[in-house]
Amino acid sequence: MIHFECDYEEGCAPEVLQAFIRTNMEQTVGYGLDPYSLQAKQVIAELCGLTAGGQGEPLWREQETAGAVHFLVGGTQTNTVVINYLLRPHQGVIAADCGHINVHETGAIEHSGHKVLALPTEDGRLTAQQVQDALLQHLYDPNIEHTIQPGMVYLSFPTETGMIYSKKELEAISAVCRQYRVPLYIDGARLGYGLMSPQADITLKELASLCDLFYIGGTKQGALFGEALVICNPLYRKDFRYFIKQSGGMLAKGRLLGLQFLTLFTDDLYWRLSRHAVTQALRIRQALTDKGYPLSVDSHTNQQFTVFSNEQLERLERLFHFSVIERTDADHTAVRICTDWATTDENVTQLINAL
Amino acid sequence: MIHFECDYEEGCAPEVLQAFIRTNMEQTVGYGLDPYSLQAKQVIAELCGLTAGGQGEPLWREQETAGAVHFLVGGTQTNTVVINYLLRPHQGVIAADCGHINVHETGAIEHSGHKVLALPTEDGRLTAQQVQDALLQHLYDPNIEHTIQPGMVYLSFPTETGMIYSKKELEAISAVCRQYRVPLYIDGARLGYGLMSPQADITLKELASLCDLFYIGGTKQGALFGEALVICNPLYRKDFRYFIKQSGGMLAKGRLLGLQFLTLFTDDLYWRLSRHAVTQALRIRQALTDKGYPLSVDSHTNQQFTVFSNEQLERLERLFHFSVIERTDADHTAVRICTDWATTDENVTQLINAL
Amino acid sequence: MIHFECDYEEGCAPEVLQAFIRTNMEQTVGYGLDPYSLQAKQVIAELCGLTAGGQGEPLWREQETAGAVHFLVGGTQTNTVVINYLLRPHQGVIAADCGHINVHETGAIEHSGHKVLALPTEDGRLTAQQVQDALLQHLYDPNIEHTIQPGMVYLSFPTETGMIYSKKELEAISAVCRQYRVPLYIDGARLGYGLMSPQADITLKELASLCDLFYIGGTKQGALFGEALVICNPLYRKDFRYFIKQSGGMLAKGRLLGLQFLTLFTDDLYWRLSRHAVTQALRIRQALTDKGYPLSVDSHTNQQFTVFSNEQLERLERLFHFSVIERTDADHTAVRICTDWATTDENVTQLINAL
Amino acid sequence: MIHFECDYEEGCAPEVLQAFIRTNMEQTVGYGLDPYSLQAKQVIAELCGLTAGGQGEPLWREQETAGAVHFLVGGTQTNTVVINYLLRPHQGVIAADCGHINVHETGAIEHSGHKVLALPTEDGRLTAQQVQDALLQHLYDPNIEHTIQPGMVYLSFPTETGMIYSKKELEAISAVCRQYRVPLYIDGARLGYGLMSPQADITLKELASLCDLFYIGGTKQGALFGEALVICNPLYRKDFRYFIKQSGGMLAKGRLLGLQFLTLFTDDLYWRLSRHAVTQALRIRQALTDKGYPLSVDSHTNQQFTVFSNEQLERLERLFHFSVIERTDADHTAVRICTDWATTDENVTQLINAL
Repeated sequence: MIHFECDYEEGCAPEVLQAFIRTNMEQTVGYGLDPYSLQAKQVIAELCGLTAGGQGEPLWREQETAGAVHFLVGGTQTNTVVINYLLRPHQGVIAADCGHINVHETGAIEHSGHKVLALPTEDGRLTAQQVQDALLQHLYDPNIEHTIQPGMVYLSFPTETGMIYSKKELEAISAVCRQYRVPLYIDGARLGYGLMSPQADITLKELASLCDLFYIGGTKQGALFGEALVICNPLYRKDFRYFIKQSGGMLAKGRLLGLQFLTLFTDDLYWRLSRHAVTQALRIRQALTDKGYPLSVDSHTNQQFTVFSNEQLERLERLFHFSVIERTDADHTAVRICTDWATTDENVTQLINAL
Repeated sequence: MIHFECDYEEGCAPEVLQAFIRTNMEQTVGYGLDPYSLQAKQVIAELCGLTAGGQGEPLWREQETAGAVHFLVGGTQTNTVVINYLLRPHQGVIAADCGHINVHETGAIEHSGHKVLALPTEDGRLTAQQVQDALLQHLYDPNIEHTIQPGMVYLSFPTETGMIYSKKELEAISAVCRQYRVPLYIDGARLGYGLMSPQADITLKELASLCDLFYIGGTKQGALFGEALVICNPLYRKDFRYFIKQSGGMLAKGRLLGLQFLTLFTDDLYWRLSRHAVTQALRIRQALTDKGYPLSVDSHTNQQFTVFSNEQLERLERLFHFSVIERTDADHTAVRICTDWATTDENVTQLINAL
Repeated sequence: MIHFECDYEEGCAPEVLQAFIRTNMEQTVGYGLDPYSLQAKQVIAELCGLTAGGQGEPLWREQETAGAVHFLVGGTQTNTVVINYLLRPHQGVIAADCGHINVHETGAIEHSGHKVLALPTEDGRLTAQQVQDALLQHLYDPNIEHTIQPGMVYLSFPTETGMIYSKKELEAISAVCRQYRVPLYIDGARLGYGLMSPQADITLKELASLCDLFYIGGTKQGALFGEALVICNPLYRKDFRYFIKQSGGMLAKGRLLGLQFLTLFTDDLYWRLSRHAVTQALRIRQALTDKGYPLSVDSHTNQQFTVFSNEQLERLERLFHFSVIERTDADHTAVRICTDWATTDENVTQLINAL
Repeated sequence: MIHFECDYEEGCAPEVLQAFIRTNMEQTVGYGLDPYSLQAKQVIAELCGLTAGGQGEPLWREQETAGAVHFLVGGTQTNTVVINYLLRPHQGVIAADCGHINVHETGAIEHSGHKVLALPTEDGRLTAQQVQDALLQHLYDPNIEHTIQPGMVYLSFPTETGMIYSKKELEAISAVCRQYRVPLYIDGARLGYGLMSPQADITLKELASLCDLFYIGGTKQGALFGEALVICNPLYRKDFRYFIKQSGGMLAKGRLLGLQFLTLFTDDLYWRLSRHAVTQALRIRQALTDKGYPLSVDSHTNQQFTVFSNEQLERLERLFHFSVIERTDADHTAVRICTDWATTDENVTQLINAL
């Protein structure tokens, strides 16, 4: 069987595994204060442009980067810690209705006391207008104190269905957030697969300059596990480590996380792995189009969505695993086909031939 | 100015005031353990049919009623305590999207850690089918543990817009809840205004037999303040007082609540006050219809909803206050007109004449 | 039976009752925005010196007082809302180990997510040195982020056992709090009984100038129910009403609270009622001393503490109710004797004669 | 430098690393439902005696073991999830005052809404009498509902200072817990180092039969990271996975945890690693005693505690790192010396020679 159902089925990139092997018996201090973690934090801060202020960039670029990068084990944890950090008890988080925090984290946000203010979207992407409307609706509510105050905006890049925001769209959302002084946080569980899409017109640095916090996904992108949270806006750095520890997110052997991200951001490994997955996904996309399968979502990242007839699905499932989204009618099923950093050329060729 | 904007603008029914005057200098123990509270609890338990099991009634009817009735100060508090009591941390509450807990309690439910699983409704009323669909959708979710488990159902009688459920509709919802073993809780902030509606085909006892918990609103119904929570199902009585105290809802001078409800449920005062308000509301409803104003909601309880042109509204607002719902277009405004136990015949006549 | 076990057994001062009677059928807007509440807030702000900045007073004295006073229904609710407002999720509240929030509020503080950092005390009073030590211990903890950050200081005036802080003691604690920038909050459930003690050397204004927030107890001091929260430091006023609503603490008929406090602070009623209770308590204290009963606590406020032999207790309990603290040994019982604004001269005389 | 300050400074046991290498490119489903995890759960359930009921064992032994074992990433997370699962909102957890949950988890327990009911201890060990007294004190509290209800007991084996409970002591605590129907949970972050102590008179199976839940620590015991939670009592298995996911504790690549524990419990690796660490620690203990250094704690597990003079410490710190506990006086410092599964014979010999 060849698996295409998700992007976290293999272990880690061989380079990452080598790093574990190489350092296994070293002794380092715990909780992310080891040399590997410190170096990885510095490398990531630089890649995100947090160390040298440039023209037109927010003031905080020129400030120090201490506390700008943290490593956490997983995505739900990262989202929960960030949102719990940013919001006051009377505030909620604006998100797309299909956003991961709204549907697939067992109410982790509500468990920490906050409402998800879900806005309807067509393809998982919020618009600047929507965000502004939601903010204004609250401000002009005659019973303002009886309703939740929007306290931040959460979006995913790419979204749950593999869509990405254009630079212009992000700039517009960012502008609204800054005008109304609500922080903008970007969930980048598949950030590399978004930025390496041929459709992406934004760089890591630009993305970092448009939001207050975001995370660079590792789990789905070549690490064994782990996410790198980047706190661009220094306003949100104070006391952050308390929140990580309180949530059970501070790994005792913190170096495991630092080491992985250091490896991933050496010699562009992260980007090469990302580009590979996207290339394979686009091969599948092309084949789907060529052979007349519908594209349920116009994704140019590592997730592709189509609809199979029962007959097609039954035939394909003898060799391949997909993620079933839903039965669209008695005869058809919508599926997701995922690639990742480890997807082989050969397996994709087999799938294409079988389609 | 004559006020019709809400149903909590006056103090309390004269009989309730007299009770305060009569007992003011008495000394009683605190926290709801005084004789007035105990007597009021007994009276309400009997009215709700909790003391003598009848044919076809749930088994628990035959059990004792200790802990079956509690008095709390307000509605948001009552809702929060009940929901926090019923749900486990991984569970949420099914409610209409316009339900009070979803929109007008500043996220009190989420603050206590639980997601409101809001379902869309036309007029604020859930259907049994909707509830069942929501329960089944969760049960068949392939990522079941990544989503919130529906742990109870919340509905309002009447709804936020004055609509009431028929006995048959409540029976259907109740049956679904019992089938899937999720408790049903009814918010009765305006319970009397619902049960005394000419459209109501259900009694207090019947309502009590169909749900697990409900509250009898006092604040909007003749009390100075206070709500009487009735826990029909003995499963949900253990340790309940801890939750009231923890939420800051245990009034030191608990007798103030007992005394009020004892008075309200003496000589049918509660029902007479309720009927009075509904009668006045229906006079307004009739006048609106007669004079060609639209009824935005088909309510037969104490809240009436219509639309005024700017000209009409401007003229009426010289004498009367209404609650503005929204500007429906540049020339029209949707408003709510409320009566309550204290609304005078004369004020309503004035309004009718002015329409 | 004559009751001396607590200070919330009667209704309210006759003047307060008259105010309810006088205004019962008036129509006012809800949620504390009515004229009575607004006026009461203004009166209290002025009494606390929040309107005109004086020499040596903190800068914020000169600022406006909007949002400086709020009315809540009860003490547990007030404490929970304030502490939840002030603390961030990784912070805890420093309090005496016998503080009300640590022992008698069913973990309301923890329920809202915060640890009570309880310090041992002899008589319920914290010292400035203790507070400073606790703050420094955290700052120098090598695992600082693994421990709760002290985020505020809570103290009671008077304490649970009727003790009061001297002006000098409060100044010292206040100075430490300001040096380390942690807000100081004073629980004044029995504030009048403290300030009217002959031992008190501090005024309401002085107390207000030394802390960031405090509340003036009504429930135990002549109101039917209610507490007046004073937010001296404008830093802690923003969005406060959201927190009241979210906690279920925003009374629909808010004027009931405003009206009571307006009455209590007209013609010094609050202070006269307070002084009366203290006078009666000190008569009991004197009698206890004269007749050789031990004073378990050296209280000069409305609560007196002594120890009775079994024989004495049995005899006295035929006529009087006390609060039992504990059996100190097989033959003795420690009790609390409370007076309040309603305690009559005659009842106290009877008790004294019976001792 | 040779490090003795903690037991999580190296990576993982070579066998565990080999398992990662061997399986790295395999594709498996996520979230702990892969074959490695399932197998590891089965192995651990059997080792704990959960599969075959024996004489005198609790009834639940005979039941199935589905849901009996879960893998989580770290200790704080495991403690928080378990305690949040077991307690209702009005309940707290009884623990030693120096228990990890009370002092070193940044208030994670309180953040999830629960009070830690800390009892004073001499060496971190609770006694059955203490637990019973705490339970009875609550039951006989006249204001019972105003105080937190003890809902479970937490203890560590070994304690924070390396002490272990005898079988008899655990039996006594277990009996009290069962009598009062409060679950008993054992934090086994260093379980192997406790069970492999020559002083231990209890087996894994016996420990499992005496408590309701416990966890087998991996992070400090040869795994790269991870803890194995064992839910002995089936009452506490329902819906557990929701809680893991909600807390951000459900690792996407769940097999990483299963694989490690499967390896650790193959060929007694876990026990051999544990015994090794204890043996090295006891060599140090012997040397300390022989050379006249005091033992601050009478530990026979992998943590040793002594006091060095400034001169001694300064000399030793040129070659070795210890954990500083506190300056006991101007001239002395209390330190902790840790061994773990990776501590070499040679390094210990060097330390002994240097003492």
